[in-house]
Amino acid sequence: MARALALLFLLLAAHAVTAAAGVTSPYRRSLLTLPDMPLDADVFRPPPGDNAPEQVHITQGDLTGRAMTVSWVTPTHPGSNVVRYGLAADNLNLSIEGTVRRYTWGGTYQSPYIHHATLTGLDHATVYHYAVGHGYTVRSFSFKTPPKPGPDVPIKFGIIGDLGQTFHSNHTLTHYEANGGGDAVLFIGDLSYADNHPGHDNNRWDTWARFVERSVAYQPWIWTTGNHEIDYAPEIGEEVPFKPFTNRYLTPHRASNSTEPFWYSVKMASAHVIMLSSYSSYGKYMPQWTWLQDELARVDRKLTPWLIVCVHTPWYNTNDYHYMEGETMRVQFEQWIVDAKVDLVLAGHVHSYERSHRVSNVAYDIANGKATPAFNASAPVYVTIGDGGNTEGLAAKFRSPQPDYSAFREASFGHATLEIKNRTHAYYEWHRNQDGVKVVADKAWFTNRYYLPIDTN
Amino acid sequence: MARALALLFLLLAAHAVTAAAGVTSPYRRSLLTLPDMPLDADVFRPPPGDNAPEQVHITQGDLTGRAMTVSWVTPTHPGSNVVRYGLAADNLNLSIEGTVRRYTWGGTYQSPYIHHATLTGLDHATVYHYAVGHGYTVRSFSFKTPPKPGPDVPIKFGIIGDLGQTFHSNHTLTHYEANGGGDAVLFIGDLSYADNHPGHDNNRWDTWARFVERSVAYQPWIWTTGNHEIDYAPEIGEEVPFKPFTNRYLTPHRASNSTEPFWYSVKMASAHVIMLSSYSSYGKYMPQWTWLQDELARVDRKLTPWLIVCVHTPWYNTNDYHYMEGETMRVQFEQWIVDAKVDLVLAGHVHSYERSHRVSNVAYDIANGKATPAFNASAPVYVTIGDGGNTEGLAAKFRSPQPDYSAFREASFGHATLEIKNRTHAYYEWHRNQDGVKVVADKAWFTNRYYLPIDTN
Repeated sequence: MARALALLFLLLAAHAVTAAAGVTSPYRRSLLTLPDMPLDADVFRPPPGDNAPEQVHITQGDLTGRAMTVSWVTPTHPGSNVVRYGLAADNLNLSIEGTVRRYTWGGTYQSPYIHHATLTGLDHATVYHYAVGHGYTVRSFSFKTPPKPGPDVPIKFGIIGDLGQTFHSNHTLTHYEANGGGDAVLFIGDLSYADNHPGHDNNRWDTWARFVERSVAYQPWIWTTGNHEIDYAPEIGEEVPFKPFTNRYLTPHRASNSTEPFWYSVKMASAHVIMLSSYSSYGKYMPQWTWLQDELARVDRKLTPWLIVCVHTPWYNTNDYHYMEGETMRVQFEQWIVDAKVDLVLAGHVHSYERSHRVSNVAYDIANGKATPAFNASAPVYVTIGDGGNTEGLAAKFRSPQPDYSAFREASFGHATLEIKNRTHAYYEWHRNQDGVKVVADKAWFTNRYYLPIDTN
Repeated sequence: MARALALLFLLLAAHAVTAAAGVTSPYRRSLLTLPDMPLDADVFRPPPGDNAPEQVHITQGDLTGRAMTVSWVTPTHPGSNVVRYGLAADNLNLSIEGTVRRYTWGGTYQSPYIHHATLTGLDHATVYHYAVGHGYTVRSFSFKTPPKPGPDVPIKFGIIGDLGQTFHSNHTLTHYEANGGGDAVLFIGDLSYADNHPGHDNNRWDTWARFVERSVAYQPWIWTTGNHEIDYAPEIGEEVPFKPFTNRYLTPHRASNSTEPFWYSVKMASAHVIMLSSYSSYGKYMPQWTWLQDELARVDRKLTPWLIVCVHTPWYNTNDYHYMEGETMRVQFEQWIVDAKVDLVLAGHVHSYERSHRVSNVAYDIANGKATPAFNASAPVYVTIGDGGNTEGLAAKFRSPQPDYSAFREASFGHATLEIKNRTHAYYEWHRNQDGVKVVADKAWFTNRYYLPIDTN
């Protein structure tokens, strides 16, 4: 039955997946670069009430989705450090105490009180209600846990990268929500762009978290780290990379045997999603290298057929912006990714949109000259989606002629969704912000590289 | 005068530098792999006396050599934490208090007391005597500070990599000493190989430091970190890379504006030496990347004409062992190295010896297929000298045919020396351990890439 359905899908999808010459979209939009929204913008407004909890966000708290980490901030004093939760909004019969911390930045900024609590022992595919704060400032939210991993369990991911906090950013998030949203967001790095402000103004980490709360308090966002999370600023005494990010955002890295929060994996429904760090060492023998080697051996395609890798700096990118920046990491890991038959590699960093054909560039041995990307049905599709709308503006200069390995590219802000239907098929869409909510600017059916590795090149 | 001398040198050296087809040395030696010397070997014997200071070693303590860091260990209690020093052995009229620390390893090993003290305000090119310990256990040593940086100031470097602590290792060190030694050693990474012992037996860090004391207590060794310094062992609870190394060995990284001990530079005489870390992130925007970009701009070839880079994993290597492991870092940094007209890149890691012609591989842009190393008079010579003699044995399988870019290669243990004569010329020798002390197995005259960039390819 699954096979029959697969063939039906394939016939329907044949037009979409038979890619030929690459497309550089003729769509032309304003390349106006916008500053970050002003500090008094509506989307940054703190909730009312003394010391009311704000910046609420959740992420998966374990390997398979039976735990959820809830994080929030209290601005003036620690306040309550408890999450109350339960199956009904009017019966939050469970509770858990979190941790609370503060950090300083650059000798001038003192963070608010940052709380993290991981709710464990949850059931799969179940709606939980939760509340933080106390007295007059209780705030209530809910989320649905991901379904239990299984080969045909559907799930819909939102895919957002390089979001920032301009009006474009707000447009992107609104579009994602209005478009039906998804079950979880794969966030491909570069959250707040606080580091673009003088002294890496960490108030912009606070405003960003208020801005995105309306989504991330209700569905888990799975974090990849980007260069705007590095916050390396020795000139103001901040020498340890990732300080604001690691204080504010947790990842469930221990659950996948990682020893650092920057590389880890989660299983959600039929997907095994691996987050890698462009901004940590990936030298042979180093922790990330060792972890990825072990992790790829742990992937069970029979349980989770869809293997997705998220990494901030793209390995295949035909935009002049950041061109070849990902080469150093591609050279290190691409052979493993191809050998593992990864379905999809999601990257950000370039403020533009691009989708590749299935290509690899792994034949090179220095002496043989074979260093040109080649079509390879075992290779992943590479998507660059650093088009969330941040203040740095669009990367509109593509290399010409369009290289063979580039299937579609366009310099517009937007977001994507990936709807995994079953073990064989997934439907992918990219939406640009300028269109009506239901208009799809790029789309593709992907067939699974383990169960149905059709050559669509 | 300098120019005339340069031409004379050049005529004399013409034979040596006109490299043609690469040489794979016909020399054949036993490939016997030796275990580490036994714990009761003479070279590991602690000095007599209760709590006598041991494992004494020095390294340059600032940017130009007017400071020297003295490190030592006391086995049973902190003891004296003072270095007494002066211009005469019988008049140590100066003193400085150091720091003392211990670390634990794997829940079972407790390090001895590790002392570090940096002697500052020294004169250049001056012999200093120093002593550590007190009462009956005072131990005395001496060193000569490097000469003040200047374009024609000569200096002789020893070059040793992947040393370990086998009888081969001892042979290498003995050969270096008997051969006249040098003013300082550029150590290209992989010190003790303690991590090859069960549980990374940290006693082997202690034995190694006793073994090499006879050289490194008297002349500065400049440290590059190798993979055997990573000591990443989550299986025994050790998750922070470089823990033994960073506790035991200091580098003067702050003096060259680095924020980590793994990448930094020193100026010695007419040389500017840059140490890079294969085992730290070198992604764009990361601290090492940022530092190297800034550092190359700080190099003043008029003051220090000789620009040398040390990095553990080779970027050019024609041995099957670790073949292409350095590609990821080469891809990231080679263009900068070529643009900076670096004279010499020293690497280790491969347990064998190799010297390249001046080549680069920087024309590649993904689409043009130009990914073959090309002769380039602006490029450095690459030397791989991971042949110190460690317990892992020799890497004897070279790729065939010998690639054009390889000038000489041989699978023997040994060491090299680099004698910088003036701003234009430096004489380089490699000695294999099996020969008599004065026998040179490979040699080359290098002309400076800034003052006399002759194309010798």
